[in-house]
Amino acid sequence: MGGFVLKIAILLYEDMTALDAIGPYEVLSRLPDADVRFTAAQKGLVRTDTGFLGLNADHDISEVSEADLLLVPGGPGNAAVRQDGKILDWLRSLHEQTRFTTSVCTGSLILGAAGLLRGLRATTHWTRMDVLREFGAEPTGERVVEQGKIITAAGVSAGIDMALQLVQKISGDDFAQALQLGIEYDPQPPFDAGSPEKAPAHVVDLVRGAMA
Amino acid sequence: MGGFVLKIAILLYEDMTALDAIGPYEVLSRLPDADVRFTAAQKGLVRTDTGFLGLNADHDISEVSEADLLLVPGGPGNAAVRQDGKILDWLRSLHEQTRFTTSVCTGSLILGAAGLLRGLRATTHWTRMDVLREFGAEPTGERVVEQGKIITAAGVSAGIDMALQLVQKISGDDFAQALQLGIEYDPQPPFDAGSPEKAPAHVVDLVRGAMA
Repeated sequence: MGGFVLKIAILLYEDMTALDAIGPYEVLSRLPDADVRFTAAQKGLVRTDTGFLGLNADHDISEVSEADLLLVPGGPGNAAVRQDGKILDWLRSLHEQTRFTTSVCTGSLILGAAGLLRGLRATTHWTRMDVLREFGAEPTGERVVEQGKIITAAGVSAGIDMALQLVQKISGDDFAQALQLGIEYDPQPPFDAGSPEKAPAHVVDLVRGAMA
Repeated sequence: MGGFVLKIAILLYEDMTALDAIGPYEVLSRLPDADVRFTAAQKGLVRTDTGFLGLNADHDISEVSEADLLLVPGGPGNAAVRQDGKILDWLRSLHEQTRFTTSVCTGSLILGAAGLLRGLRATTHWTRMDVLREFGAEPTGERVVEQGKIITAAGVSAGIDMALQLVQKISGDDFAQALQLGIEYDPQPPFDAGSPEKAPAHVVDLVRGAMA
């Protein structure tokens, strides 16, 4: 990797879900020679979906004209971004020369709106699977879905798993394991309720109702 | 919980590790009636340890005089914070009336410097266990360590597990499972290398060297 800079562009937008971006960032930014650019329609603070957190876009989309790895996070604000021609144009333009074009959670709906998922298998948050079909994609319940250079991850925390898979591809097994160990990613949630197949039915209904 | 506001204060500082704060934030901010305040010595942008990300402190420490839940993230900048009397005073003052005082990764070293861990079992990033002893704490390799109202989590990603445990205590099993399902936390890392006991020895050496 000597001398090679790995350009990583992460899209930020109003009402996004922070962990969708920050989980993968925490892994990918530690790749050798990574150059991460948090990029939004305008520079400056982006307010995330809870209203409690401001993430800074150091760059606007006019400043970032290429990327080796593009990452699009999800969140309620995805609906507005799907209507934003300038951002969709930017995504299509970057995608032409990326090595990996990726999304987390409902970020895949933005890739879909940009026309990048037609005929491909893809995933998103489990409550939004049907929306993928509107963009010609075939929804699948896998946690990380790889279709050529387009990789989509399931809801929110799945971006961490996707990022480790990307590190494995880019820098190999040892480095992927080193980054996993560096962030001490040895998950021990108090329940095994992280997918609709595993959670109790009444909990699934609760979440589905809250996110409707 | 009707009418009750759960005040959550999350400390931000230069050279912190973003995921230490954002992982738990993504869970805890979705508690009913949560009011999350990202708080730093001064208001405004804090640059995280990779240099690539700015997180905004909406509040300075003079504005946040109480919290039900205090969370201190880790990161290389912990060393400077441990020397910052104003922040340590603020932490001690908040701790007097918190319901939970918590840390992720090397955030526990800051709690230690504030004198809050004397005689307690605690954890931190696995490469920094010995430093805990300097503050009179007893290091332990558990992922989340509860000692009365002080709860410390291991490195970086362990904050997500700690946050789900906190939700279980605050709002019960169903709600904790609902938040786990909401962020689709069904971890599937490509390797089982997230702790020094599980990672290959040469990978452990690699990370220990990089973090020395």
